[in-house]
Amino acid sequence: GTSPAPEQDGDGTEASSPDSSFIVSAVHKGVQTIQINRADKRNAITFDMYGEIVDALEAGRDSEAVRVTVLTGAGEFYSAGNDLSNFSKIDDVASMAAEAGVVLRRFVDAFIHYPKPLIAAVNGPAVGIPVTTLGLCDLVYSSNAATFHTPFAALGQSPEGCSSFLFPRILGPQRANEMLLLGRKFTARELESAGLISEVFPEDRFVECYKQRVAMLAQLPPESVQKSKWVIREPLLAQLNECNEAECRLLEERWQSEECANAIRAFFSRAKA
Amino acid sequence: GTSPAPEQDGDGTEASSPDSSFIVSAVHKGVQTIQINRADKRNAITFDMYGEIVDALEAGRDSEAVRVTVLTGAGEFYSAGNDLSNFSKIDDVASMAAEAGVVLRRFVDAFIHYPKPLIAAVNGPAVGIPVTTLGLCDLVYSSNAATFHTPFAALGQSPEGCSSFLFPRILGPQRANEMLLLGRKFTARELESAGLISEVFPEDRFVECYKQRVAMLAQLPPESVQKSKWVIREPLLAQLNECNEAECRLLEERWQSEECANAIRAFFSRAKA
Amino acid sequence: GTSPAPEQDGDGTEASSPDSSFIVSAVHKGVQTIQINRADKRNAITFDMYGEIVDALEAGRDSEAVRVTVLTGAGEFYSAGNDLSNFSKIDDVASMAAEAGVVLRRFVDAFIHYPKPLIAAVNGPAVGIPVTTLGLCDLVYSSNAATFHTPFAALGQSPEGCSSFLFPRILGPQRANEMLLLGRKFTARELESAGLISEVFPEDRFVECYKQRVAMLAQLPPESVQKSKWVIREPLLAQLNECNEAECRLLEERWQSEECANAIRAFFSRAKA
Repeated sequence: GTSPAPEQDGDGTEASSPDSSFIVSAVHKGVQTIQINRADKRNAITFDMYGEIVDALEAGRDSEAVRVTVLTGAGEFYSAGNDLSNFSKIDDVASMAAEAGVVLRRFVDAFIHYPKPLIAAVNGPAVGIPVTTLGLCDLVYSSNAATFHTPFAALGQSPEGCSSFLFPRILGPQRANEMLLLGRKFTARELESAGLISEVFPEDRFVECYKQRVAMLAQLPPESVQKSKWVIREPLLAQLNECNEAECRLLEERWQSEECANAIRAFFSRAKA
Repeated sequence: GTSPAPEQDGDGTEASSPDSSFIVSAVHKGVQTIQINRADKRNAITFDMYGEIVDALEAGRDSEAVRVTVLTGAGEFYSAGNDLSNFSKIDDVASMAAEAGVVLRRFVDAFIHYPKPLIAAVNGPAVGIPVTTLGLCDLVYSSNAATFHTPFAALGQSPEGCSSFLFPRILGPQRANEMLLLGRKFTARELESAGLISEVFPEDRFVECYKQRVAMLAQLPPESVQKSKWVIREPLLAQLNECNEAECRLLEERWQSEECANAIRAFFSRAKA
Repeated sequence: GTSPAPEQDGDGTEASSPDSSFIVSAVHKGVQTIQINRADKRNAITFDMYGEIVDALEAGRDSEAVRVTVLTGAGEFYSAGNDLSNFSKIDDVASMAAEAGVVLRRFVDAFIHYPKPLIAAVNGPAVGIPVTTLGLCDLVYSSNAATFHTPFAALGQSPEGCSSFLFPRILGPQRANEMLLLGRKFTARELESAGLISEVFPEDRFVECYKQRVAMLAQLPPESVQKSKWVIREPLLAQLNECNEAECRLLEERWQSEECANAIRAFFSRAKA
């Protein structure tokens, strides 16, 4: 599941890499767009897809043609988050937890260290890790059709994506905990007011509006933009790395807990019923 | 003023401890409610009551029956804060300051280290330390009848409850300083917008609304909830401990200052007039 | 360009120092007002004026007559920021960058360490460093006629005034980056909602309204107010000093970059056309 480095075609557009059906990366006028393209599964993310997103980010990082990177989803959902089928082989829970930990660490690490502006274009509902990683994106544009839901505790799990560090700082602990502990679903307007979303655009004009902002950013002097990002991000790296490690260790423990096994069993029972 | 460990009665309800008339602790379906029950004095807190609240928190911490803890007030006020009669024996100001410092450190310390979700249910106006400790509560629900007032400087004093660390982070320094330096009274809606309040409910439906949220939290897998709280809180412990210590040291100095003596004398003159 | 220490005249009013035409400092009833008085140039700040503002702050810091300090602008603008004529002698770009670095470090340092309440009274549009230093002011009052614009990247530059540290904390990174990376112009209402502005007042009542708040603060017990400020600020000093240093080093590099030279050349070409 590795993507080749993006190369621009003749008119500045790059076709998606043919060997990756669910993660599509294209570059146009300095903007790399990484789209989760699995609309029939609400853009839920399998272990392979986590790796492909990291590969696309590494390609964007290394490509001179890429000035800014956008993450978005195909269809109605931004992403339903972790595909729970990742956890369906519960015959060996310890090695499943170890594998998931490796996948998660690498995924979040790629967000923490991404050196160019990283923009989330949240086209629709987001659940779980696509929500928690928003704090690591430099700009977050959202359709007013989007909702934001992090039902960790209900699934016997715990926060990831550095949200345990960043969400209390961005939203204040008292609002962050309604997401991180209680799992209350938030609207786009609520999170715009709370500060996690840069700006909400109407659903029918969302793509046009966010692309205008992204195009403005891609036209600014790129060295100034990247170094400005880095003077903001660099002092937080040690804390973000520690947070990612602490969150992954806790999740590895959670994934092997009775609470999590029961919650996932219940989920699949409901799905079959 | 110590409370016995809470024990549930037959139908999951625990009566208040009989030896404590002003602090009432009861457990029902996993929810410990600690109520300040001194409505005729606007729930002002005496030195004894500070200790009884800590005792109730320690009992909640240690009880397997308790999953979440709620702090609230009886009657119209949440709490008018520190009972200034605590400072009326000003014949020996140095030992008064030392005693108050011990009481305050222990009180705030209990909030910092509380391992289960701690929820403030602010039923009405709050003044002083019941406001400043809100930053240490994981969730804050408020009636729209509540107001929030921290007139430290007018009384010759200074912030406590880790508000000097947390309020600038939650509200931004420019809004926090209107509370912490200027002592401007805030409405519930202002603090919801600013992030210190998770959600404001209408006065006539306040109890029903906040209890619904608390019940939801108490029904979630408890290990996941507690460990999620801890992965959020643990990285802040060193800074919170340092802040509590610095705030208490400054207050011990303030309590022995001319400014504070004059302000408290003026307060009691007005009260008698 | 040094100002003499402020002294009060008979009725508590101090005249501006006669040797400084663009920076006027006056003290009235405990309030020092430092006004940028160069309305015909939109209060743009020359290297000399940076130094004069620092001198006025040092005088306020050292004067017993001063309890709080207000920064404001004469005329319609708060300040258009750095006077780009500071950069017009581009024959020796290395020494220009070194000089500008010294001026900037000292200017921001005076804000970081100011021991008394520092209040920005933003009477109109603000561009660049008068915006970024707002995060270091304890209170920010703004006219609804003000706008806030930090077009660093468009000029090949990068954030200063500790905004790379403070703005993500105050506004959240996702909103801060619309200012710091994208350079989007914000309204006063947007920044009040986001937390950088303590309160917005209507243009026609702005002076009256902010002066009332400042007068309240100046009447509070001064020791309590200053020590409360310091218990808030002191734990951040190491991070603020590091941030100022990192921002200045990056700007010294930026000022010598091709991107910056091109952007400033383009600016002066437009200005002449």
